[in-house]
Amino acid sequence: MNIHILGTGNVARTLAVRLKELGHRVELETRNPEDTLSRTFGDGTVMSDWLKTNDVSLSSFGTTTSEADLLINASNGKGTLEMLHRVGAEALKGKVLLDLSNPLDFSNGMPPTLFVCNDDSLGEQIQREFPDLQVVKSLNTLTAPLMLTPHKLKGDHVVFLSGNHAEAKAKVRAMEESAGWKTENIIDLGDITTARGTEQWLALWVRLYGSSGSALFNLNLVK
Amino acid sequence: MNIHILGTGNVARTLAVRLKELGHRVELETRNPEDTLSRTFGDGTVMSDWLKTNDVSLSSFGTTTSEADLLINASNGKGTLEMLHRVGAEALKGKVLLDLSNPLDFSNGMPPTLFVCNDDSLGEQIQREFPDLQVVKSLNTLTAPLMLTPHKLKGDHVVFLSGNHAEAKAKVRAMEESAGWKTENIIDLGDITTARGTEQWLALWVRLYGSSGSALFNLNLVK
Repeated sequence: MNIHILGTGNVARTLAVRLKELGHRVELETRNPEDTLSRTFGDGTVMSDWLKTNDVSLSSFGTTTSEADLLINASNGKGTLEMLHRVGAEALKGKVLLDLSNPLDFSNGMPPTLFVCNDDSLGEQIQREFPDLQVVKSLNTLTAPLMLTPHKLKGDHVVFLSGNHAEAKAKVRAMEESAGWKTENIIDLGDITTARGTEQWLALWVRLYGSSGSALFNLNLVK
Repeated sequence: MNIHILGTGNVARTLAVRLKELGHRVELETRNPEDTLSRTFGDGTVMSDWLKTNDVSLSSFGTTTSEADLLINASNGKGTLEMLHRVGAEALKGKVLLDLSNPLDFSNGMPPTLFVCNDDSLGEQIQREFPDLQVVKSLNTLTAPLMLTPHKLKGDHVVFLSGNHAEAKAKVRAMEESAGWKTENIIDLGDITTARGTEQWLALWVRLYGSSGSALFNLNLVK
């Protein structure tokens, strides 16, 4: 597939490397490509070198989005709606967006709280704001290094799908299966309102991270 | 132990039977014992017969609470604070309360939402309201028939402890272990603020219940 990741941070780059491994064409969309090209990461790597090394393309929001088979929202939840507006409703029309962000609010110290929860979700906010975009909430429930590499943990563990569009969910399911997720471990919770459940899982996730000191865990369902 | 369960509904009675099996003395506290004695359940059983059959005592809130080694909040979350006021701060002084309720709001249809979440929790509300009561949030994350019978599910699965008092948590842990929970499957998340995580788990729990049609599940943590 031709996959466009919206965002250029750690999550975007972690997923990009794995998606290339899986044989996809990968492009990152960003606000200002020139600025992004000269950015350096913690280890000193320059973005332009990273893109070349990993054979990942870079473009400005919305300019090549129409070519993508799948879009991935890898932005910080707080900036998601603004970013999607930069991409533009026209460019997003008819596209499938895998939304793996979380509506985390870090403004009151740690652990973060949620800036939307309970009777709404970020997944629903995106879907209402962009009615022609097919939002699929998935993979927001585990850390980026695990999202497309389930084998890194011992034993079965699960991820979820929430969305209003069956074909869009099927597309995301297929991509996840290609990454190693067993289909019975991808749980379709239902429509986009079920994203309230997976986003609020973060409230427990942050406590598990706090008590264990590690993000390398996931949940399994036991019956 | 001499365990007093606050409440007389399904959850209270399910736990009472199991706690009797485990060898404890069990007493239910209620608002009006006379009214409670004549209540009938869905299957036609009368409460007075049920108490006799199961060798469970019944008393009025707060009258014999001082004798209890452990208190269990098995009331509906919405009624919890009012109920505890009927028991009374004096009777609750120095006691350990296992709080397994959830702050569920059913007033806007199904699935229920939470009437407190994100930056507060029912566990914390109880602790603030009754500073001399040692609140331990635990077992609110799974359905009553599973709370003290972990072997009913196949394989490992986990429960949590949240509370400000180490000895109180140790008491609840010991009781859970006596019911079959492996100590490594009882995860201490930390202080009572961590109850935000386990109460918000309900947002995902209700979606899993909705998509599967069964409450007989729990989560395990995979590393």
